[in-house]
Amino acid sequence: MYDHVKGVRDFYPGEMRARRRVIDSLEDVARRYGFREIGTPTIESAELYIDKSGEEIVEELYSFEDKGGRRLALTPELTPTVARMVVAKQQELTKPIKWFSTRPFWRYEQVQQGRYREFYQLNADIFGSSAPEADAEVLAYAADALSELGLEKEDFEFRVSHRDILGGLLESIDTRIDTTEAIRAVDKREKVETAEYYDLLEAAGLDRDDAREFNAVLSAGDVEEVRAFADSDRVDEAVSNLEAVLAAADEFGAGEYLTLSLDTARGFDYYTGVVFECFDSTGEVSRSVFGGGRYDDLIESVGGQPTPAVGVAPGLAPLSLLLERAGVRPDESYETDCYVLRVGDSEEVRRVAARITRDLRAGGGVTETDVSGRSFGAQMSYADSIGAETVVIVGEQDLAEDVVTVKDMASGDQERVPVEDFPDDT
Amino acid sequence: MYDHVKGVRDFYPGEMRARRRVIDSLEDVARRYGFREIGTPTIESAELYIDKSGEEIVEELYSFEDKGGRRLALTPELTPTVARMVVAKQQELTKPIKWFSTRPFWRYEQVQQGRYREFYQLNADIFGSSAPEADAEVLAYAADALSELGLEKEDFEFRVSHRDILGGLLESIDTRIDTTEAIRAVDKREKVETAEYYDLLEAAGLDRDDAREFNAVLSAGDVEEVRAFADSDRVDEAVSNLEAVLAAADEFGAGEYLTLSLDTARGFDYYTGVVFECFDSTGEVSRSVFGGGRYDDLIESVGGQPTPAVGVAPGLAPLSLLLERAGVRPDESYETDCYVLRVGDSEEVRRVAARITRDLRAGGGVTETDVSGRSFGAQMSYADSIGAETVVIVGEQDLAEDVVTVKDMASGDQERVPVEDFPDDT
Repeated sequence: MYDHVKGVRDFYPGEMRARRRVIDSLEDVARRYGFREIGTPTIESAELYIDKSGEEIVEELYSFEDKGGRRLALTPELTPTVARMVVAKQQELTKPIKWFSTRPFWRYEQVQQGRYREFYQLNADIFGSSAPEADAEVLAYAADALSELGLEKEDFEFRVSHRDILGGLLESIDTRIDTTEAIRAVDKREKVETAEYYDLLEAAGLDRDDAREFNAVLSAGDVEEVRAFADSDRVDEAVSNLEAVLAAADEFGAGEYLTLSLDTARGFDYYTGVVFECFDSTGEVSRSVFGGGRYDDLIESVGGQPTPAVGVAPGLAPLSLLLERAGVRPDESYETDCYVLRVGDSEEVRRVAARITRDLRAGGGVTETDVSGRSFGAQMSYADSIGAETVVIVGEQDLAEDVVTVKDMASGDQERVPVEDFPDDT
Repeated sequence: MYDHVKGVRDFYPGEMRARRRVIDSLEDVARRYGFREIGTPTIESAELYIDKSGEEIVEELYSFEDKGGRRLALTPELTPTVARMVVAKQQELTKPIKWFSTRPFWRYEQVQQGRYREFYQLNADIFGSSAPEADAEVLAYAADALSELGLEKEDFEFRVSHRDILGGLLESIDTRIDTTEAIRAVDKREKVETAEYYDLLEAAGLDRDDAREFNAVLSAGDVEEVRAFADSDRVDEAVSNLEAVLAAADEFGAGEYLTLSLDTARGFDYYTGVVFECFDSTGEVSRSVFGGGRYDDLIESVGGQPTPAVGVAPGLAPLSLLLERAGVRPDESYETDCYVLRVGDSEEVRRVAARITRDLRAGGGVTETDVSGRSFGAQMSYADSIGAETVVIVGEQDLAEDVVTVKDMASGDQERVPVEDFPDDT
């Protein structure tokens, strides 16, 4: 017997039905926002990641050489791929470009609750607008998508910050600080021991006193205090931009889901502006559910014209944990409108049952019929197991009187209806 | 600038919209037939293919070692994966099991028209029934799915055969013939030169005279002639089974799409009964569009209880060629119900435009608004480029009179409507 590979999952029909309801809902809201679906490859040149992403990601790649000697990788995230696609048609594409897609990604990492080596995300991105309204629209989309899934205001929050607030703060302390490393340290703050956090800050170039002061300002979470502490144009502009995004998101109806959180950093190095992460308000789901932000330099870094960009990427597995916690995970039942039950094997019974099955399917109903030559009892039991709402019994005796028997499986009621009227069009 | 990997494709929104229409249609019909969606991993142990499939497939695998030393492969087809999943829950699953999924697969092979290294298929399979009705239901599904896409009776045909007809015929000629190799030769008959075809048959153990006679019987395509030539129970049973499948498919309404074709063999070694391939009736699309058949031994070969199985797998790329040839490929236009145009940047204009956008989206309409701080003209041009049906103009002057202007983009007509009534619920 073969098993699936570690860190990937098989989804049987019940679980898949629940997942499909989540995907349909996320995609339906994305379409309403005017995001257009794209289709993207599973494999990219490994260089796309090795050149541009942090070493952290490279270590986690599923990379290999193909039979033509190309160094390839299974895509660990969508952003470099969509950036490549924007660059390839930069002249033709009308801005803003608003794209979405739902698909799997792969990272070779520790398997844990809500985290797999093969994982599914919807990505929604806007390219070509640096205005706060674009950030706000992405935030509003994410909040709307979660509401559509049945989550309420008290279930989740988006913690919103701006990368230049952290960068500018650090720069104002000492220009020799390695800000990339320091921001990575902040990103890990809630995941590691305090001592390790301070060690990471020290490794990035902050001495112990600066690190404590820096941390105190972050923890206070007051933008005016930040402005005063940094006293720099860079931080002023970042705070103003963040405030404009929050105001626009409020107009779009997403204000109630947003919390200012200066230490939200996001793990990727390519973020340049507003960044945000979605958290379970109860804290029961302890890690970030998903996140997003602005990455204005990425398109240029993969060879394109400077093009501002902002996006979000809800992942299905962590999102399922949140939906489960909030008691709104879609159910796993799948629908069967009708089972057409054949009694005996006479030519007329076969012909009428097949005709009724065809008509029901043509009318859009989920309809099954016997494909195993089974007894009445076995068919009735199967119809029950697939949750059929109605069973249509086609038998010789009934047909001699030009009727079929229609049984409601919930009530058990049954009635005989003229065969030529079944199914009627209504 | 980075390019995509050879043999994979980027789908921009227009092309993706057309593909999504095809996928939705194929899946919608599958659901009506009672096939239930499953989700399957992209990566499997390479052994799953190396142990069970022909060497031909192994050479085409994207296989690699992961960082834990596991030998993995990108799935080249779905069947071994679903077989593995059936085995893993064999006791719990109610039979017949009817599953479908749409997803990419990978083969390292020559890239040509309609054939890529990364390609998408819908797979629909029935496990647990050996009855002819199961084969017939799969055929009826495939025919119905193509009809739903707008293809007509004269556009396509399913060439249907039975593996034991070929196997039994060969056995009746000489029991020492390597039937697997001989059937592979038949499968290649239309793809290679006649001389090569006969060489392949000879390599499988047929002498030249037998090969000619064998070929003549195949080409005649008459089942009674085949029965008489073979004079064996195995061929008799295969012909009877094939006839029963064709009769049941006829009851299910698929008869008019089926043609008996004794030399249809299918490339995979695991087929055991009825096999079929869909062809363009005009021959313009020269290769098989897709195929399917019965594979009763596969579940047992991956460690399960003996479980009969039959399935079909339409591939999107060859299917698109057929749809294109028949003039029914879905169009690439995507829909925009409304663009909300903001004139100026006053707080009231922003607030009202955002409220209208929210309401339109909540009502299910595809709605875009300005996220770039653009002029009236630039916004109108963008609204036109995304095919907006309606543009709602929100400006200060109108708002002073409590109205907004609603412009029909097709006719150019516009009317002013009270802002509190827009959008109305109807």
